[in-house]
Amino acid sequence: MSETPSANKNQQEARLHHRRTMCPDVTNVAIAPCVLVMVGLPARGKTFMAKKLTRYLNWIGINTKEFNVGAYRRDKMGDYKSHEFFRNDNPDAMEKREQCAMTALNDLCNWLDSGGEVGVFDATNTTRERRNKILQLCTNERCYKTFFIESVCDDPTIIESNVKEVKISSPDYKMMDKEKAVEDFQKRINHYEIFYEPLDEEHDRPLSFIKIFNQGEKFVVNRVKGHVQSRAVYYLMNIHVLPRTIYISRHGETEMNLEGRIGGDSNISENGKNFAEKLKEYLERENIENLRVWTSLLKRTKQTVENINAPKEHWKALNEIDAGVCEGMTYEEIATRYPDDFAARDRDKYHYRYPGGESYQDLVARLEPVIMELERQENVLVVCHQAVARCLLAYFMDQDSESLPYVKVPLHTIIKLTPIAYGCLVEHIPLNVNAVDTHREKPRVVSKGRSFDEAIRTVPVHPK
Amino acid sequence: MSETPSANKNQQEARLHHRRTMCPDVTNVAIAPCVLVMVGLPARGKTFMAKKLTRYLNWIGINTKEFNVGAYRRDKMGDYKSHEFFRNDNPDAMEKREQCAMTALNDLCNWLDSGGEVGVFDATNTTRERRNKILQLCTNERCYKTFFIESVCDDPTIIESNVKEVKISSPDYKMMDKEKAVEDFQKRINHYEIFYEPLDEEHDRPLSFIKIFNQGEKFVVNRVKGHVQSRAVYYLMNIHVLPRTIYISRHGETEMNLEGRIGGDSNISENGKNFAEKLKEYLERENIENLRVWTSLLKRTKQTVENINAPKEHWKALNEIDAGVCEGMTYEEIATRYPDDFAARDRDKYHYRYPGGESYQDLVARLEPVIMELERQENVLVVCHQAVARCLLAYFMDQDSESLPYVKVPLHTIIKLTPIAYGCLVEHIPLNVNAVDTHREKPRVVSKGRSFDEAIRTVPVHPK
Repeated sequence: MSETPSANKNQQEARLHHRRTMCPDVTNVAIAPCVLVMVGLPARGKTFMAKKLTRYLNWIGINTKEFNVGAYRRDKMGDYKSHEFFRNDNPDAMEKREQCAMTALNDLCNWLDSGGEVGVFDATNTTRERRNKILQLCTNERCYKTFFIESVCDDPTIIESNVKEVKISSPDYKMMDKEKAVEDFQKRINHYEIFYEPLDEEHDRPLSFIKIFNQGEKFVVNRVKGHVQSRAVYYLMNIHVLPRTIYISRHGETEMNLEGRIGGDSNISENGKNFAEKLKEYLERENIENLRVWTSLLKRTKQTVENINAPKEHWKALNEIDAGVCEGMTYEEIATRYPDDFAARDRDKYHYRYPGGESYQDLVARLEPVIMELERQENVLVVCHQAVARCLLAYFMDQDSESLPYVKVPLHTIIKLTPIAYGCLVEHIPLNVNAVDTHREKPRVVSKGRSFDEAIRTVPVHPK
Repeated sequence: MSETPSANKNQQEARLHHRRTMCPDVTNVAIAPCVLVMVGLPARGKTFMAKKLTRYLNWIGINTKEFNVGAYRRDKMGDYKSHEFFRNDNPDAMEKREQCAMTALNDLCNWLDSGGEVGVFDATNTTRERRNKILQLCTNERCYKTFFIESVCDDPTIIESNVKEVKISSPDYKMMDKEKAVEDFQKRINHYEIFYEPLDEEHDRPLSFIKIFNQGEKFVVNRVKGHVQSRAVYYLMNIHVLPRTIYISRHGETEMNLEGRIGGDSNISENGKNFAEKLKEYLERENIENLRVWTSLLKRTKQTVENINAPKEHWKALNEIDAGVCEGMTYEEIATRYPDDFAARDRDKYHYRYPGGESYQDLVARLEPVIMELERQENVLVVCHQAVARCLLAYFMDQDSESLPYVKVPLHTIIKLTPIAYGCLVEHIPLNVNAVDTHREKPRVVSKGRSFDEAIRTVPVHPK
């Protein structure tokens, strides 16, 4: 790699300092702008990985954006016609494809220059010429760290399943007959195969990269540099594509829920016990293979799963957000005793930290190992708490930090997550057991000095 | 791999259940017995990795033990004589070496059978025949998960430096002239080279392994199975062998230290300010390249580093242990208000969790990302708190969970950690600024119902 010109270095340091100040808690380390470059033939799961990794990095607080060249092409060229566009003896089409790629890459660079932290460049990037162009633009000219992520498959079953998946999910084929789509897509792959130059352990020895074989059977990891690359590698090594389901639920209703009190470690109510029973019956009906049950260390989650016949693990990391000095209070009491804090929380609920307690941002940092282990597992039921469930769901549903603290997670409702194409199917399954509402919407007035009535306007009713 | 006989499966499940109960918080997942098998020529850093990985796994709560065949050989054969013992045309010596290896492996298996979780088998294991024997014994007969860790070096500088290191640190050469030792060791390596069969990506495709090239330049990772292997891989990918120094210090003395109160978020005292000044001067004298400074989010650590001219990062994970209902109390007050808790803590300080707060075990789980990032970094000063520093130091000094909560970390003292051979040189550098003592030894009487006097016998004096 070339030397860094010092003007760029200074700019970069200024940027780093800025970032460090903005995001001190979740990632804890300064992030140098980084480009993650996907490499591989079509139907090798590149977009799946690009999207999933982007979602993960954003969730842990690293500002990440993906740039999909296919989307740029559709934008520029209109509807997809056929594989002919991808022939390498079609100079006109080749030029247009090159233009699309360069437009996407320029947008990525501009985005990093304007404060982005990680840009994910999702394209085939199968030739050395293209990769050298990326290195020239990103690493030589702009001092970004560049990391290549190559997906290699030689297992026909995996390729076939990916081809089918793309056929279903790609906008290119939404209007085409299914069989014709598969045929066209296969030809498109063939055009790429002719010129494909995989990353080579000898030739590309100076580069930073990971090669992923057959969706995680084997990895080659070369010259990992810095925090982002290290996290990306760990993540890519832990995700899998086996079909499975994750069930997320809050504990059964508690005595303190009935009183509208937050935190604490109270027992579940009669309604709560009823829910525990219904939950057990539901799981028995679903008859889930090798189900594992995770709870927090708090009584209400353990009581909720007491009668479920499955291996259980209890995580302190799943405990409810620590409300510090406000533990055990009602919202009305908080509004009375700590009116300024209560308003500050409404202004920026994600970053607001309870005095002596935690913020949602803290919670995400503490839940990161839970997400990593969830990615590694197959069928899991997670019985946890409102704020914790919001953080977990935000990861799966790709919610930003502003909407995260307002994700709706009603009591006595199972949230069933099934991986599909590039995301997750989210189903709410209410078990029809009465429970109080604990969801407090962001009120209209959030200013310091607002009246008590304004402050408690959105507090849900509690019977006691 | 062969099928698991069901008798073994039941035994294993019983064992797993036992383990899950014993260690629910740090690793959070059931640990299946696992054998980590080092592979590689002499002087490739195998023992360095084996020892470091063992230390890490133990620290995160996975019961791990290494079995070094060299130590078994020295035990059986007495003092080392010369490389002739490692010739492959020396059948008598070969048989003895085989016996040593098998004794070590049998001890490892017995240890796993009696409740160990991970056994690290530290030997060259350079032939396929040997590795097949290990698989037969561990995986086929006993259903342990077996993971190979191979270190490959073709960089002569690294090999030379390792040869020198071994010359200095190996008991084999402690009585030999330096030059002669290097020569002998080189010949010993040559004997192994003749029969070395590295793990092969094609031939060994069914096995689980990591190949580490030139101390971390490149990795090949194949069929990682389960939590332990995944953690081991992540760890091995993050450690480095560059020379560097880690400085650990507590914050300057605080107002609450003077009153003998724990927790809280108080300001540093006059003595504390004095220490902050002396710390700054010390660092300037040391003139440390690219020093980074890490603190907790609490005022006392930030105030301590205020005037140090270096990039700073603030970690919530470095905050002091949460004493829950005891926050802000003196030990005398805790002994009065919560006498049973106070005694329970003295009985098992590592696992005792303050009501509404944390245990030392919780703290280790929360500090794991800090250790991982510390491993990745070069020169770092960590300014933190008594319990936090104990956990960090226990990692570097390989202290078990019983002694961890009693590690001495006096105020106003820098603890300088320098990596050497297979461990860490630990230096205490008091900066000669007055401070109260906050170290409370384990008292003689720890039973429930002990008298107040017995309970506070070891409480250090506090001036206010």
